[in-house]
Amino acid sequence: MDAARPAVPPASPLRIEADYLLETPIDPRHAAEIIAGEQSSGTFVPVPGETPELKERAAARVEALEVLETGLMSRSLPSARGEWGGERISRARFTLSWPLANLGPSLPNLLATVAGNLFELASVSGLRLLDLRLPQAFADAYPGPGFGIAGTRRLAGVEGRPLIGTIVKPSVGLTAKATAALVAELCAAGIDFIKDDELQADGPGCPFEARVRAVMPVINRHADRTGRKVMYAFNLTGELDEMQRRHDLLLAEGATCMMASLNSLGLVGLGALRRLGGLPIHAHRNGWGALSRHPSLGWSYVAWQKLWRLAGADHMHVNGLDNKFSETDASVIDSARACLEPMFPGKPCTVLPVFSSGQTVRQAHGTWAALRSPDLIMTAGGGIVAHPDGPGAGVRALREAWEAAMAGIPLAQHARGCPALARALETP
Amino acid sequence: MDAARPAVPPASPLRIEADYLLETPIDPRHAAEIIAGEQSSGTFVPVPGETPELKERAAARVEALEVLETGLMSRSLPSARGEWGGERISRARFTLSWPLANLGPSLPNLLATVAGNLFELASVSGLRLLDLRLPQAFADAYPGPGFGIAGTRRLAGVEGRPLIGTIVKPSVGLTAKATAALVAELCAAGIDFIKDDELQADGPGCPFEARVRAVMPVINRHADRTGRKVMYAFNLTGELDEMQRRHDLLLAEGATCMMASLNSLGLVGLGALRRLGGLPIHAHRNGWGALSRHPSLGWSYVAWQKLWRLAGADHMHVNGLDNKFSETDASVIDSARACLEPMFPGKPCTVLPVFSSGQTVRQAHGTWAALRSPDLIMTAGGGIVAHPDGPGAGVRALREAWEAAMAGIPLAQHARGCPALARALETP
Repeated sequence: MDAARPAVPPASPLRIEADYLLETPIDPRHAAEIIAGEQSSGTFVPVPGETPELKERAAARVEALEVLETGLMSRSLPSARGEWGGERISRARFTLSWPLANLGPSLPNLLATVAGNLFELASVSGLRLLDLRLPQAFADAYPGPGFGIAGTRRLAGVEGRPLIGTIVKPSVGLTAKATAALVAELCAAGIDFIKDDELQADGPGCPFEARVRAVMPVINRHADRTGRKVMYAFNLTGELDEMQRRHDLLLAEGATCMMASLNSLGLVGLGALRRLGGLPIHAHRNGWGALSRHPSLGWSYVAWQKLWRLAGADHMHVNGLDNKFSETDASVIDSARACLEPMFPGKPCTVLPVFSSGQTVRQAHGTWAALRSPDLIMTAGGGIVAHPDGPGAGVRALREAWEAAMAGIPLAQHARGCPALARALETP
Repeated sequence: MDAARPAVPPASPLRIEADYLLETPIDPRHAAEIIAGEQSSGTFVPVPGETPELKERAAARVEALEVLETGLMSRSLPSARGEWGGERISRARFTLSWPLANLGPSLPNLLATVAGNLFELASVSGLRLLDLRLPQAFADAYPGPGFGIAGTRRLAGVEGRPLIGTIVKPSVGLTAKATAALVAELCAAGIDFIKDDELQADGPGCPFEARVRAVMPVINRHADRTGRKVMYAFNLTGELDEMQRRHDLLLAEGATCMMASLNSLGLVGLGALRRLGGLPIHAHRNGWGALSRHPSLGWSYVAWQKLWRLAGADHMHVNGLDNKFSETDASVIDSARACLEPMFPGKPCTVLPVFSSGQTVRQAHGTWAALRSPDLIMTAGGGIVAHPDGPGAGVRALREAWEAAMAGIPLAQHARGCPALARALETP
C-alpha cells in the first residue's frame, strides 16, 4: 500500500507552520496578526528590549490568508462583552509560521506555541487548529512509533487484512477471573486483538496485576496451541512509576501491547512511556470531544494526531463509520487517512488507525472504499459477541465482510457462501 | 483569612461525584442515564458477563437532575446528522456518581471516567463539567502542593499582601544576557516575582541553562544585599528527563520556583515533576481556551483546577479582571475563589491564584472586593514597565494600589499621597 500513499510535502527546515480556521468580527488579516504577535515577540506596549532585530528574528509570520466568507452572522463563541447577535463576521483560513529557534524541536513547547493562549483571544469568535508542518529537526529529536504498522502486524501475526478486535465489556465491573474467562472465549473465537476499556486500568475490583496474571496465561496457552498470539492492549494508565511497573510486568508475562489514555498522560507522560520501549502503545483519545466538538474551536484530529505519533503512539483511535457519537463519517475518514500519511522523508511515523464504536460487518465496505488500505484495527463489541451463533461466528463474519470488501464483492453476494456473515446480516 | 473561608463540604467516602451542564434534544433524564451507562458498566447490547450484581456494584448513578429550561432553540453543538435548526432543546444541571472501586484514587483514570468519551455523544448537544467532589482516598493518595501559599510566601519573603510580579517581555527573543539585564532592573525596582513567558523554555536563542546561569547570580546578589530573594519562575517545560535536569540545576543555583505548561505535561507529567519536590510549581494553563471557551462544552475551571492542585501545583493561572481575552470578570473571580477553597478536611491543597493579562493599578480594588484575600500573585507587564517614571515606580504604584484596596481607601484619594500611583493613574 505504501507506494500509493502521498509523498511527504517538503517542510521548511527552519520554520514551524500551522494552519487555522478563523472566525472574527474584525478584519481577518488583523486578527491573524494579533495571534502572530501574541504567540511570539509581540507586546501590547513597547518594552525596552524589543528591537527591530529581535522582532525580525523571533516574530511569527502570517504566511497565507484566505477569506472564506463574510456576512451578518452570530458569533460561534462568546466574548467577555457578551455579543451573540447578528454582526459582520468573517471566516478565514490562514497559516502562521514561527522560527524553529524560538523553541527548538520540543513537542511540549510546540503545544504552547501553536495551541497556547489563543483560543480565548477576544478578537476571535472562533479558532481551530487544522494542520501542522514540522521541520526535520523534530523527526531527529523524537523516536516516533516504536512498532508502528509492521511491528504490530508481526507481533499479532496478521498480514494483508485489518486486525479484527474487540473490547472487554462490560467496560468496568468484571473481575480479573471473569475477564480471563471472556478472553478465553474470544481467543477460541479466533480474534486478533482485544483491548481493555479506558475505564478499566487498576481499580480495586480488577487490579492491573491480577488481570495481567489471569489473562496472559490464557493468551500464552492459546498461542502455544495455534502459533499466533492474540494482542491484548492492557490499559496501564496511571502515574509514571505505576506505568513503569506495569510495563515491566507486561513484558515479563509475554504481553504484546499497552494502552494509555493520551489526555491523562500528556505529551510528557507519553514521551516517558515511549522511552520504556518494550511494547506497542495503543493510544486512546478519550476526552477528545472537548477539544474538537465545536467546529469553530479547538483542534482538528489531523493536527492533533501528528503530535502523538511523533511522541511514540503506535495505534490511534479514530472512531468509526456510522458511529454512536456526533462525528461525521467524513471526519472519521480524514482522521484515519491522516494516520496513514507519512510525516517526514525517511521517517513516516505511520500508525494503525483504530476504528471503534458500533462497528459491525456493515462498515467494512465503506471503510475500505474510503481508505483503500488494510492497515487498521477494527474493534467491534456487540458486532462480535452479539452474533446469534456466538463470538466465534461474530469474528468469522467480520473477517468475511473484509474479504468481500477488499475483493470488491457486494456484502449480500459474499454472504451466500458464508453462513456466519449471512447470519450477521440477519441482525438489524 | 483562613477562618473566613468556607468549610469543606463532606464528600462521600466511597463515591466520586461530578456536576455537569447538559444541553440535549432528548429527555434530559434519559441523556443523563446514557452518560452514566457509557461511563460505567452500560453496554449497547446485553453481554454475557453483565449480571445484575455487577451492574449494582459498578454502575454510575444520576444523583440529581434539575431542568433549567426547555424550548425551541438551535443546538449549541452539531451532531453527525447536522441538525442546527430550531428544535425542542432542554438545558439541565445534573450530578453523576461513580463507585470509587471502579478506578481507585487515580487522577489519570479519573479523567477518563468524568471527562472521557462523553462530550461527543450524539445524544447531547452540549456538555460541560462544572465541578467534582472526590473521596478522601484521593487526598491520601496524592501529595497536593509541596509549598502552597505559606511556602511560597516564605520563599519570596512577602506576607500580608499580594505578590507583585511581572513577565519577561518580549515573550520570546531575548538572549540569556538580555534577560538577566532586565531581571537586574526589575530586582532594583523592588519586584517580588518574575516569570518566563510560556513561549520561552529552552529555545536555542535563549537556552534554559544559559538563562538560569545568567539570571540567578543577579537574583542571588540582590538577595544578599536586601535579604529578600525575588522569586523567578523558570519555565522548565520539556520532556521528563529534561525537566529533571532543569529542576536539579534550579536547585543548585538557588532558584525558588519552576514553571510548567499543564496541558503539555498532562496529569502524569505534572505528577512526575511534583515528585522531584524541590521547588514550588508555577502552573501555566496555556491551551485552556480550547477546553473552556464554548459555554456549553468542555470544562469549568472550578472542576479543572482541583485535579492539578491535588497533583501538586502551587500557583494556578486564572487570567485577570478587565483582561484582553474573552473571559468575563465573574468567571475569573470564580476561578480565583476556587483556588482558595480547601479541598479536603485536613488537606486544603489551597494554591495562589495568578492574575495576569493587562493588569494595572486599576484592577487592585475590584480584585480585592471580589476576593477579600491577599493570597494571590498579580503579574503586570506593561502595567509595570510602561510606568512613565520607570519600572521602580511601576512596582511601587501597584503595591500602593493594593494598600489602598485592602485599607478601603479609594484609589484617587490614596494617590494624593503616593506620587508613583498618581503618575500611573495619568496613563490611560
